[in-house]
Amino acid sequence: MTKLPCWNWLRLYNRQTLGSDLVAAMIVTIMLIPQSLAYALLAGLPPEMGLYASILPLIAYAIFGTSRTLSVGPVAVVSLMTATAVGNVAQQGTVDYATAAITLALLSGLILLFLGFIRFGFVTNFLSHPVVSGFITASGVLIALSQLSHILGVAASGKTLPELAFSLATVIGATNPYTLSVGLCCLLILHWSRGHLAKRLERLGLTPLLAGALAKCVPVAVIVMSTLIAYALELDARGVELVGAIPQGMPAFSQPHIEWTVIRELILPALLVALIGFVESVSVGRTLGAKRRERIDANQELIGLGAANLASAFSGGFPVTGGFSRSVVNFDAGAKTQGASALTAVGIALTALFLTPALYYLPKVTLAATIVIAVSTLIDWKIIKTAWDYDQADFMAIVITIVLTLTLGVEIGVMSGVGASISLHLYRTMRPHFAIVGTVPGTEHYRNIDRHKVLTHHNILSIRIDESLYFANAAFLEEIVDTELSQRDGIEHVILMCPAVNMIDLSAVEALQEVNSRLLERGVKLHLSEVKGPVMDALKRSALLLQLSGNVYLSHHAAVLELTQKS
Amino acid sequence: MTKLPCWNWLRLYNRQTLGSDLVAAMIVTIMLIPQSLAYALLAGLPPEMGLYASILPLIAYAIFGTSRTLSVGPVAVVSLMTATAVGNVAQQGTVDYATAAITLALLSGLILLFLGFIRFGFVTNFLSHPVVSGFITASGVLIALSQLSHILGVAASGKTLPELAFSLATVIGATNPYTLSVGLCCLLILHWSRGHLAKRLERLGLTPLLAGALAKCVPVAVIVMSTLIAYALELDARGVELVGAIPQGMPAFSQPHIEWTVIRELILPALLVALIGFVESVSVGRTLGAKRRERIDANQELIGLGAANLASAFSGGFPVTGGFSRSVVNFDAGAKTQGASALTAVGIALTALFLTPALYYLPKVTLAATIVIAVSTLIDWKIIKTAWDYDQADFMAIVITIVLTLTLGVEIGVMSGVGASISLHLYRTMRPHFAIVGTVPGTEHYRNIDRHKVLTHHNILSIRIDESLYFANAAFLEEIVDTELSQRDGIEHVILMCPAVNMIDLSAVEALQEVNSRLLERGVKLHLSEVKGPVMDALKRSALLLQLSGNVYLSHHAAVLELTQKS
Repeated sequence: MTKLPCWNWLRLYNRQTLGSDLVAAMIVTIMLIPQSLAYALLAGLPPEMGLYASILPLIAYAIFGTSRTLSVGPVAVVSLMTATAVGNVAQQGTVDYATAAITLALLSGLILLFLGFIRFGFVTNFLSHPVVSGFITASGVLIALSQLSHILGVAASGKTLPELAFSLATVIGATNPYTLSVGLCCLLILHWSRGHLAKRLERLGLTPLLAGALAKCVPVAVIVMSTLIAYALELDARGVELVGAIPQGMPAFSQPHIEWTVIRELILPALLVALIGFVESVSVGRTLGAKRRERIDANQELIGLGAANLASAFSGGFPVTGGFSRSVVNFDAGAKTQGASALTAVGIALTALFLTPALYYLPKVTLAATIVIAVSTLIDWKIIKTAWDYDQADFMAIVITIVLTLTLGVEIGVMSGVGASISLHLYRTMRPHFAIVGTVPGTEHYRNIDRHKVLTHHNILSIRIDESLYFANAAFLEEIVDTELSQRDGIEHVILMCPAVNMIDLSAVEALQEVNSRLLERGVKLHLSEVKGPVMDALKRSALLLQLSGNVYLSHHAAVLELTQKS
Repeated sequence: MTKLPCWNWLRLYNRQTLGSDLVAAMIVTIMLIPQSLAYALLAGLPPEMGLYASILPLIAYAIFGTSRTLSVGPVAVVSLMTATAVGNVAQQGTVDYATAAITLALLSGLILLFLGFIRFGFVTNFLSHPVVSGFITASGVLIALSQLSHILGVAASGKTLPELAFSLATVIGATNPYTLSVGLCCLLILHWSRGHLAKRLERLGLTPLLAGALAKCVPVAVIVMSTLIAYALELDARGVELVGAIPQGMPAFSQPHIEWTVIRELILPALLVALIGFVESVSVGRTLGAKRRERIDANQELIGLGAANLASAFSGGFPVTGGFSRSVVNFDAGAKTQGASALTAVGIALTALFLTPALYYLPKVTLAATIVIAVSTLIDWKIIKTAWDYDQADFMAIVITIVLTLTLGVEIGVMSGVGASISLHLYRTMRPHFAIVGTVPGTEHYRNIDRHKVLTHHNILSIRIDESLYFANAAFLEEIVDTELSQRDGIEHVILMCPAVNMIDLSAVEALQEVNSRLLERGVKLHLSEVKGPVMDALKRSALLLQLSGNVYLSHHAAVLELTQKS
């Protein structure tokens, strides 16, 4: 049996690494307390579930995960996906709703573990990066909008941009001025401190390290201040919603309640949550790993995240994954190993044990402001511009993903994005680039007759194919040969030059056989040249080479030489 | 406005073409009468709907279609798909069932027209040929099995192999010996005449043309004989099911009855019927067209087949498309233009007007035998062997298609087949072939260091990438460079040799940027060589070339020369 990944860091653990990890853990704990409460709110769940999802899952990942600095726990996009999926099977606020969220974590965990055991880490490759960026940007917009109702102090809901906008428009008149005031203050302080506080503190003479650490405490300070203000001014009597009573203590180790009908409804969302969570997490892990030359093993990551989600499900939490901002903070704060995560878990556990009564007067609007500021970093419209400049197909895939995520919701959005990028890729390779080529005078080189002054022979048609041949372009190959041949008289030999053909599938072999027999009927021979080794190996297993009316030449020049000498 | 396709043949029509077309039309009419009745039976519809689907649709295709010899009408696979789709929304034998079949033709027609107008003829390229063969083979098996109950004279039903087998097993004890006898006789005669009759007649001194024409009349002769026998022996009293009363006369021009709930259920099946029908039809049309150098325009074919299906819907028929065997007969019988189809329509119309009373005593088992013999030509197990020999991925796609079509039905079967071939193609290009290359001594050629004796430089790593770079393999590219670099010491330059890279999408550009910055952190420069024109054009629109730590070289040799002289 191979060793658990935690062996790699545990066996080298010493006082120095413990010291570094402890500092990082304290900073991340302070950051994670408001985030865990806020993302539970975003997922439509009671705040304690956010804390529960930030204890055992961290320990599980520390044991089974490969990234030393990844900070696992509730994250924005997955929490939004949870709200969408669970909202389809239960009413928010009911026990069934919480149970369904736990079931979703269980299913995602099992799916991730299964994919890890069958070594399917490569599935993420099917998600094109622009599509993922587009999806996350659109999700960020939806998340920010969904928090707007908390900031206005009204009850609005919806899973799509039109639903949310309509819902907000109908209730905006009922805006609570006290809630809005608290919300705007929090937004302003959080936004300003994010951009400027650290620099201001440095200018006041603090060391950069201390200034940075202090700036990271602002969210907690905002929470403490708004809680005190809510308590002192009795804001609940003025309609400001408070977090209220959070059960004190550690989560009970509970077996998730399983219902088949719910599982059937949640299996597809669980798959999407698992994949999106995995893609996000692995890309964060890889980015941070590259800075320290640490390798992230995608298959082991599936197992680590799967274990984290199972741990979440068995301790009353909801789906978790590696978060970007927290992981960067963890890394910057000097975390050396997964020990930092384990220590963060201890910090959150202590919070759950002792600090929850202090959160009674925390206004929900403060948490909403925390979320809005956090997701503002996810929104990246620049990717649209980059894609527009680069390529139509990439641009289309992003726009489809963003528009459908905003208008039809996260699930349809991400599935359409994957569908769009695959379809566009096939569409792009469907009409392969090809060139009629001739000899560059005095050389053995063959180049495009439209771009270069080259020599051709009246009875030889040389076509260079610049694409692998497979089912999506097999028909087009027949068309190319037909069209080019019909424009020329006296052709006796067609040579397909294949230096850029990396693969020929069975559909394309059949198309070549068809081309071969059609040419034969016209008395024209078909030759191949510069076929690559692996492609030639494949062709030898088909009937094409037996039927081919002409020959296969190692170089195009050899083909032309022999065919001109013959005639 | 462009001219209607029929203009192409109408303006050149003369007595000679009329003569040829008339002969072909007579033979095809004789063949189409039993087929149209039989395929209506297969689709679970009253026999007259088979005749109706063989009149106006032929005229519509003759006006709008581009193949001169394609014979449009009811065909086996599409009839089976109709039975499956319509069986989900209505009970066989009810008016709703017939209405749903008409609605299916209407929807398929509209979908085909729409795809034609937006010039989406290329969609068929997404269906790999082996997958289509596998689907048709599995459908042929299902069709033959579904007719077995008619041949045994029992009532069995089912849409999948297990359902049909189970249903047959429970009722096989109730086999009607009279029905079975008629069925076996028909099967034997039809099977034997197909293989041997024409040759026997030739040996008896008949001309090949006459012998062939006579052999083609056997199905009609079998129908006449079994009708006479059923009448004479009063077989209906012995439990042999007869076709019974067929309304005499032409179909009324009727507006299809539209119900939203039915349309929603039928829209996906209609899309599948449209696509499969189109693929089958176009491949028949192309095969025949190639023999006479006639071009088939895929987009115009969509419009032709769309018009045919609309015509079918508005005259009480069901989905139609171009059939293989009938078209070959039409071609062989000397049809010169779409006029032959129009004349065939007249033949079927005359049948509907005058001959239906004569079909009262026709046993259904005779029609079932006709179907079994017809579909036996569709079944092609050889494709499995061919694919097995050629390539794992093609083999997998076929097996998935066949197994799922047999066990879960035609709709899931064909969708899974498309999904499988696309996934396998992506999987195949996901781990691109690459080679570390070195100079072949005394030349400017660079070859794989594992296959050839080549020279390398201690500080240069040359990697040749043998695949287009896109989202599915972008991550793998990073892995290749990382892995190869970690196995060597003292590398200062990495050169990616790209002669076989036909396309780089945005995900791959981002991966290259990532590779570039990671190498830069280690003090290694990244260069590109032999980048193709279109790829270079694309890269110029990205930020990669600005960030690239090294250069882009026209030839790999130039790169190595310059980099070795520098150091």
